[in-house]
Amino acid sequence: MSAQQADLILTGRYLLTMDREQSLIEDGGLAIAGDSILAVGKASDLLARYPGATILVEPHGLIMPGLVNVHTHAAMSLFRGLADDLPLMQWLQDYIFPVEATLTGDLVYQGTLLSLCEMIKSGTTSFCDMYLFAGDVSRAVEEAGMRAWIGEVLYDFPSPNYGELENGFAYTQNLMDRYRNHPLVTITLDPHAVYTCSPDLLTRLGAMAREEGALYVIHLAENEEEVRTCRERYGRTPVEHLEALGLLGPHVVADHCVMLTSAEIGLLAKRGVKVAHCPESNLKLASGIAPVVQMLEAGIAVGIGTDGSASNNDVDMFGEMNTTAKIHKVDRMDPTAMSAATTLHVATLGGAKVLGAESLIGSLEPGKKADCIVLDLDQPHLTPLYHPVSHLVYAARGSDVIHSVINGRLVMRNRRLLTLDEPAILARAAEIGAGFRQSRNDG
Amino acid sequence: MSAQQADLILTGRYLLTMDREQSLIEDGGLAIAGDSILAVGKASDLLARYPGATILVEPHGLIMPGLVNVHTHAAMSLFRGLADDLPLMQWLQDYIFPVEATLTGDLVYQGTLLSLCEMIKSGTTSFCDMYLFAGDVSRAVEEAGMRAWIGEVLYDFPSPNYGELENGFAYTQNLMDRYRNHPLVTITLDPHAVYTCSPDLLTRLGAMAREEGALYVIHLAENEEEVRTCRERYGRTPVEHLEALGLLGPHVVADHCVMLTSAEIGLLAKRGVKVAHCPESNLKLASGIAPVVQMLEAGIAVGIGTDGSASNNDVDMFGEMNTTAKIHKVDRMDPTAMSAATTLHVATLGGAKVLGAESLIGSLEPGKKADCIVLDLDQPHLTPLYHPVSHLVYAARGSDVIHSVINGRLVMRNRRLLTLDEPAILARAAEIGAGFRQSRNDG
Repeated sequence: MSAQQADLILTGRYLLTMDREQSLIEDGGLAIAGDSILAVGKASDLLARYPGATILVEPHGLIMPGLVNVHTHAAMSLFRGLADDLPLMQWLQDYIFPVEATLTGDLVYQGTLLSLCEMIKSGTTSFCDMYLFAGDVSRAVEEAGMRAWIGEVLYDFPSPNYGELENGFAYTQNLMDRYRNHPLVTITLDPHAVYTCSPDLLTRLGAMAREEGALYVIHLAENEEEVRTCRERYGRTPVEHLEALGLLGPHVVADHCVMLTSAEIGLLAKRGVKVAHCPESNLKLASGIAPVVQMLEAGIAVGIGTDGSASNNDVDMFGEMNTTAKIHKVDRMDPTAMSAATTLHVATLGGAKVLGAESLIGSLEPGKKADCIVLDLDQPHLTPLYHPVSHLVYAARGSDVIHSVINGRLVMRNRRLLTLDEPAILARAAEIGAGFRQSRNDG
Repeated sequence: MSAQQADLILTGRYLLTMDREQSLIEDGGLAIAGDSILAVGKASDLLARYPGATILVEPHGLIMPGLVNVHTHAAMSLFRGLADDLPLMQWLQDYIFPVEATLTGDLVYQGTLLSLCEMIKSGTTSFCDMYLFAGDVSRAVEEAGMRAWIGEVLYDFPSPNYGELENGFAYTQNLMDRYRNHPLVTITLDPHAVYTCSPDLLTRLGAMAREEGALYVIHLAENEEEVRTCRERYGRTPVEHLEALGLLGPHVVADHCVMLTSAEIGLLAKRGVKVAHCPESNLKLASGIAPVVQMLEAGIAVGIGTDGSASNNDVDMFGEMNTTAKIHKVDRMDPTAMSAATTLHVATLGGAKVLGAESLIGSLEPGKKADCIVLDLDQPHLTPLYHPVSHLVYAARGSDVIHSVINGRLVMRNRRLLTLDEPAILARAAEIGAGFRQSRNDG
């Protein structure tokens, strides 16, 4: 018998560690003490070694690390399907900007709760969020017991949250102070993009990030338009612009990175910049296909993000993995590109590395935080089963996730959310949607 | 009160007809008599007009036509995830061909049952199948109460089913005779492809198809390799080859059509050839992206197919719609390409047209066969709801389907299959998979 006590033991037909060897344990299990993983191994061993723990046995279950969504705007769930299939500028100016201009802290809080329901129900246990009213995003995240990296987006224009830009710095600093050493919420510094932020804004946030040891999260090289605008204004591409300002470094999370030259890939690798790949949003907005295979070959840490629900239109990381694995094959005309194993790594431990949290989450190893999910394998689309990793990338769906544990706490059991009042959240979100529709019709 | 009696009435928050106007009825319903749709309209009107019917009320439900999967190899579900991420020839020669060589009628029957479970549970109510042991495919389909177009694949080599090619013609003719005027099963004539079938084989099946008034289903222009081989052998592209043989016509269903020139698109349109678009398989095998937008502009009838589960790795048409709508946007660098409305049309009425069944299925209109599904809208990823068509393409998943009706018969209720013994089918498929794995390890 061990000296240490386990609080919770999960067992399943398979446990996939997603450690560097992607070890797979048949009839495996996970013992959790407090917020951390105590042990990983054969279910029978764990049950014998740690008597007295709460036990969750799933003979048809696959236990794996929770997925890490490295780029989203959670509250945009409120705008899911408001408008689609439009030219980017028309979509933004006629639909997204008008509703965003009317946002309040309460709306962002409600929209984030809605996204949290969806994220937990589709296997995500941590995410990186860039949006307005980041304090309200954090409030929703705390309620859910989710793990998140959260930033208030700053740009040159007045914000519906903090008003003038100067207040934005103060707002961010306050948030940073409030959540210092919080077990689940980490505050990031989020300039929107090079075409919406002056060099001065970019530089000030860069200095804050270095001072605070915080992540610097920015949309970068998302589409041709951004590159053209940046060239016209500064005579440089977005990547060259950040380099010229001395802002590139290992604490930078660059979102999208669709439009990169080989030289820029080399530069990002050299500077240790991390990349958030958002394939479905990049397809839907016709931005392009990011050169992720080349980035990985260059040694860049890449994670997968869903982007916001307005341009996806969901936050299901299983769907995003499926798309990631397939689209790079056709982009390279090589069916061996972006294998299932690489894709699953990118969505778990790779994503953790992007967020500077490789030692904390992304794999099931003793000492790491207990963020894990259990899938039900007993389903037609997951039968027969030759290689679990293949199924997770090419056949599984978010709806196959039955249990979720974040920071040692069971947040979903048998698809019932334990920390969030799902019916009330859906009802409120539907009301908000009806309001947006009404005001559009009136306007 | 109406003279005619309804057997079953479904009501929901929305009914989406998918007729030419894609009419949407709020608080809508569908009255079914026997195998056919009696009436479509407001739920309250139908309930008043047809007393005595069985009633299925879903206040959060969306009722729509069942999806039409125009190209698959259902029994290949047994090889789902057996091998992935390999060069095409290595994948075929080292994995798929060896297991296919050992196929029996019973294995095909079991694999088809497995796919039928998955298809019904993800919203498909009819499909077009090309495979070996088509008689056993048909047997499984009859058991499920599914609607299907089924063909025995013919090629120049001996088949594990019928042996020498000559027997293949007899086998097909027998099948054709057995299922003549069957309510659910229609037999098709299926030469595998131009590189596996001699001109004589192609021509003989073509004559049979015209004589029988049957569909002529063939893989066509799937990838560069096929075009190169055909050019080397005949000095013509695959499309030019069929044209030279006088085989193109409105009864031809051409699967994949990835490698088409503009002139070939014009020719297929002129001949009235139908196309089965299989985007996920084309991505996964790195075949390319079919020029579907150009085909639709040319007036070609296009449907969506999943291809077999070995190269997808599922038969979920909701996922396939999502991929279809997104991938053509980036292929054309135009976010307005392949709208949600167009995509949903292609997966329903468009697919019906491909199968020559436009007057029978594909939309919910009085007089048509009653093939419909009900989705549960009360979920985080479908909230709020501005436009049902957008959600169906960009956010819904197969697992959102709760009820399914085929030919007037309820085949799934609350996700429980009523015509198939799902636990027994999954158990048998898992056993078969274990056998394949064992024989590979022994071999």
